[in-house]
Amino acid sequence: MPYRAPVSDYQFIFDHLVGLSDVTATERFSDTTPDVVGAILNEAGRLCEEVLAPVQRAGDLHPAVLENGNVRTTPGYAEAYAQIAEGGWVGMTADPEYGGMGLPASLNAAVYEMMSASCLSLQLNPLLTQGQIEALEHHASDELKALYLPKLISGEWNGTMNLTEPQAGSDVGALSTQAVANGDGTYAVTGQKIFITWGESDFNANTCHLVLARLPDGAPGTRGISLFIVPRFIPDENGVPGVANTLKVVSLEHKLGLHGSPTAVMQFDGAQGWLVGEPHKGMAAMFTMMNNARLGVGLQGVGAAEGAYQQALGYALERKQGKTVGPDGTISDHADVRRMLLTMKAEIFAARAIGLANAAAIDMATATSAPEWVARAGLLTPISKAYGTDTGINVASTGVQVHGGMGFIEETGAAQFMRDVRVTAIYEGTNGIQAADLVGRKLADGGEAVFRLLDEIETAAEAARTAQPDLAGMVWSSAENLRDRTEALLNAEMNDRMAGSVPYLRGFALVLGGHYHLAAAMAEGGDGPRTSLASFFIRRLLPENTALFQHAGEGADDLYALNADELAA
Amino acid sequence: MPYRAPVSDYQFIFDHLVGLSDVTATERFSDTTPDVVGAILNEAGRLCEEVLAPVQRAGDLHPAVLENGNVRTTPGYAEAYAQIAEGGWVGMTADPEYGGMGLPASLNAAVYEMMSASCLSLQLNPLLTQGQIEALEHHASDELKALYLPKLISGEWNGTMNLTEPQAGSDVGALSTQAVANGDGTYAVTGQKIFITWGESDFNANTCHLVLARLPDGAPGTRGISLFIVPRFIPDENGVPGVANTLKVVSLEHKLGLHGSPTAVMQFDGAQGWLVGEPHKGMAAMFTMMNNARLGVGLQGVGAAEGAYQQALGYALERKQGKTVGPDGTISDHADVRRMLLTMKAEIFAARAIGLANAAAIDMATATSAPEWVARAGLLTPISKAYGTDTGINVASTGVQVHGGMGFIEETGAAQFMRDVRVTAIYEGTNGIQAADLVGRKLADGGEAVFRLLDEIETAAEAARTAQPDLAGMVWSSAENLRDRTEALLNAEMNDRMAGSVPYLRGFALVLGGHYHLAAAMAEGGDGPRTSLASFFIRRLLPENTALFQHAGEGADDLYALNADELAA
Repeated sequence: MPYRAPVSDYQFIFDHLVGLSDVTATERFSDTTPDVVGAILNEAGRLCEEVLAPVQRAGDLHPAVLENGNVRTTPGYAEAYAQIAEGGWVGMTADPEYGGMGLPASLNAAVYEMMSASCLSLQLNPLLTQGQIEALEHHASDELKALYLPKLISGEWNGTMNLTEPQAGSDVGALSTQAVANGDGTYAVTGQKIFITWGESDFNANTCHLVLARLPDGAPGTRGISLFIVPRFIPDENGVPGVANTLKVVSLEHKLGLHGSPTAVMQFDGAQGWLVGEPHKGMAAMFTMMNNARLGVGLQGVGAAEGAYQQALGYALERKQGKTVGPDGTISDHADVRRMLLTMKAEIFAARAIGLANAAAIDMATATSAPEWVARAGLLTPISKAYGTDTGINVASTGVQVHGGMGFIEETGAAQFMRDVRVTAIYEGTNGIQAADLVGRKLADGGEAVFRLLDEIETAAEAARTAQPDLAGMVWSSAENLRDRTEALLNAEMNDRMAGSVPYLRGFALVLGGHYHLAAAMAEGGDGPRTSLASFFIRRLLPENTALFQHAGEGADDLYALNADELAA
Repeated sequence: MPYRAPVSDYQFIFDHLVGLSDVTATERFSDTTPDVVGAILNEAGRLCEEVLAPVQRAGDLHPAVLENGNVRTTPGYAEAYAQIAEGGWVGMTADPEYGGMGLPASLNAAVYEMMSASCLSLQLNPLLTQGQIEALEHHASDELKALYLPKLISGEWNGTMNLTEPQAGSDVGALSTQAVANGDGTYAVTGQKIFITWGESDFNANTCHLVLARLPDGAPGTRGISLFIVPRFIPDENGVPGVANTLKVVSLEHKLGLHGSPTAVMQFDGAQGWLVGEPHKGMAAMFTMMNNARLGVGLQGVGAAEGAYQQALGYALERKQGKTVGPDGTISDHADVRRMLLTMKAEIFAARAIGLANAAAIDMATATSAPEWVARAGLLTPISKAYGTDTGINVASTGVQVHGGMGFIEETGAAQFMRDVRVTAIYEGTNGIQAADLVGRKLADGGEAVFRLLDEIETAAEAARTAQPDLAGMVWSSAENLRDRTEALLNAEMNDRMAGSVPYLRGFALVLGGHYHLAAAMAEGGDGPRTSLASFFIRRLLPENTALFQHAGEGADDLYALNADELAA
């Protein structure tokens, strides 16, 4: 079954669940009329169905390779990318002053989710470029903006993020890359960076690296880190790439998945770079873009889940095996296969709604600067990221299972979704880091943002009680469970919070999923497929919240009861 | 960290949890003294640590290939296999009359779990041969036994199972392979079989295929299927392989994992075969060995989990990243990493104990033929298989997560565990089929076997109440939840049972896991690492049983509320 863009699902979520109309009612996004929304979704859907999905397998079969010191990418990627660039999809949310479309993050989120479903390896290229555009828009000098933004926004050049070093992964502050002033306003950047996604490309005329490095007077830790832009080819004042910079791809990683996306070890040997923002404020600049990037990765998970679901559904509706008791005459009639398919679909809807709600909150924060929206966007980000990517992993694995023995055969394509999506729970901050962010930084307001969200959820559940007494009651109770656990965590030592962070985050996501499913049922009038799916999610999947919140309240002490020798015994 | 065989864990489980002494007290297994048990475990552990683990990566990097029509296996496998064969490990449980060791299945289970942890691809070769030995012991004529068993038991030849055809997977009865009498007591077997594990080997002097096929007068469906042994080279009366049979490997599959294990498409073109057992009784013969084979696959999951856990633990105890609050100065100090490690360890122990309890029940059934033991063995089999393999998949994925970015890099080896183990939830009956077996065939006794087991669990919990009031109380309550759900399922329509079968099986496994963890704590005297691990499992993981049993009770109706179009919408 070829990929089919779930445009109507985005439209429904925008119209009924996450209030895109509030976003487009702001002055900032007033150009985004309903017609624009429809046109963008349909046009992007077409791109993903007709251009990206057809090159998805090629990336796996013909990985990017390093050949004579240069990266050669998957056959077909250059042509597919050209259509991404020409369509203006790289600069969807970018400043129109530099050629961007100035669209809401909400729309961008839907489009990039579709791109993830159809070709995740290639989607990473413009996704990273978007992050760089955002960082430059917020922190670069006008001169750098004028030079770089038009080329990045048009997609002519691509952008990367260079954070990780062998000894500095989650602990970015441990990095050792150095930058020394050249005396002409530029800097010489020296060091090795690893896990650099799309560290080079043979279909982008230039690759621009955003590099975290330490100036000679930079303090140890994260507070002494500065941000530099270091292009592969140094552009002249007209933006024409000229002299090759002293940087190179040392090697490409052999990865579990995402073979089409070159993951480079980058070596900078006194490479010429330009400071972005203030000295020693590099981490702050990175954090500006981090929220959006994390949401973007969460939606990669949702997209991969959608792709895997569609393929599994197609197989289940085709494959005949055993006596069936249902309407289709195929294995989709078997109760357990049906349970798997509905679990996939229900989780995808929940994760998608959470991600788009997050995007809408980002838009409202951008448009209004209201602290409530800033807080909402920040609160939802780790949940979107971790639940979206966990959903990607779970759904892709279930997709393999639906295929039976064929799922283990690579030609089927089901396994590729599983391999490709696995890293999304790791990069852009592991899901453990997301959970730590949730119970740490995101509860630092004393729970204000959580409780405001819970009030909305409970108000909506109350309003739904007459029409959907059972479902509304279950959602309301789960919200109360979340409230109780949140209050308890707020009174707990930080390491006790950390000990419960991952189950707390997952329980939180289930509550949100229940809330959005209930809202979907209400929007549908309480009778129809969305209501049935809501009932499935709320009755069968949401109840796990009780055990998760119990787990989240166990504290840290017992985690250390076994010492290293006993762990190994 | 190199693989370390968890010999003391098996010894503890044998001594305190699953009553190996009851097994060895039977006449049948009276030779298996405690000294023998210790010697076998230690010797097998050494083999796995020193011989098998070193070839584990090679299988992934240098897959078996089809070259000029013959299978060429991974470098190093032949030498490693020679030590498996020479040690007598193929014939551990086989009849001493034909060269076997006649040991209990319990010991075999532990040994084959270790072999799975150290090299799953290679372990499949003798595992399949064991299945063939068992089938021949039970169903073959004395002549066939005398010819084949010594060669299979010595490991000189290997054995395969040929069930699946493109249109006949879970639905074995749909097969179309034909067998026609040659008039000389042999049969001409014609057809294509797929997914044939170790369908050929360049280090076994012969490969013997057990093939399910239909005789001309065979009824449609499973009742018309017969079983044949079809050797690659036809042995003379002295067992010397001679003329090549008319069968061949058409191709090898490109799989997600288990690259070292050749998975063949086999073509039989009037190949000469010998009937095993009665005509049309092939399925019954296959079912004899099915229980043991399913347990074997469940323990493959446990073994892969153990290998993945050990590697992740080694990494976590070495890798420094961020400020730590614990005793090791490495990422293992972070509460969430510790939570992951303990989850892995606690689930492995639960799955291992269930698997070994299953093996002990098989031994008791073999030794005593008591219907209670036969029923217990049958009841535990689908649980061992599905929970063991799900644990393998979950733990291997968590192992990747513990490694952070390095987990996605193939050289690390963490991803291989995840890829290799994925199929164990599919082959030898998908885990959905296992769950269907549990709520269907295994409840056909009106729940007698389940309730007898629950009585034991609750009696043990009662006995533990004084020493461990909290843990015992939680285990007891979970057993009551299982009892309630079982009673309800017994009164439900079959498709409603099926709809809840997978969550029911998982809840069942959690109850058993809680029971064995509690027993371990009691055996340890209630203070020590096993008690801490028991507390972790019972307080943090067992509570999910409530949600699972709720899910299991929802029936089938809502699964069909969305039609095919709505599923695709």
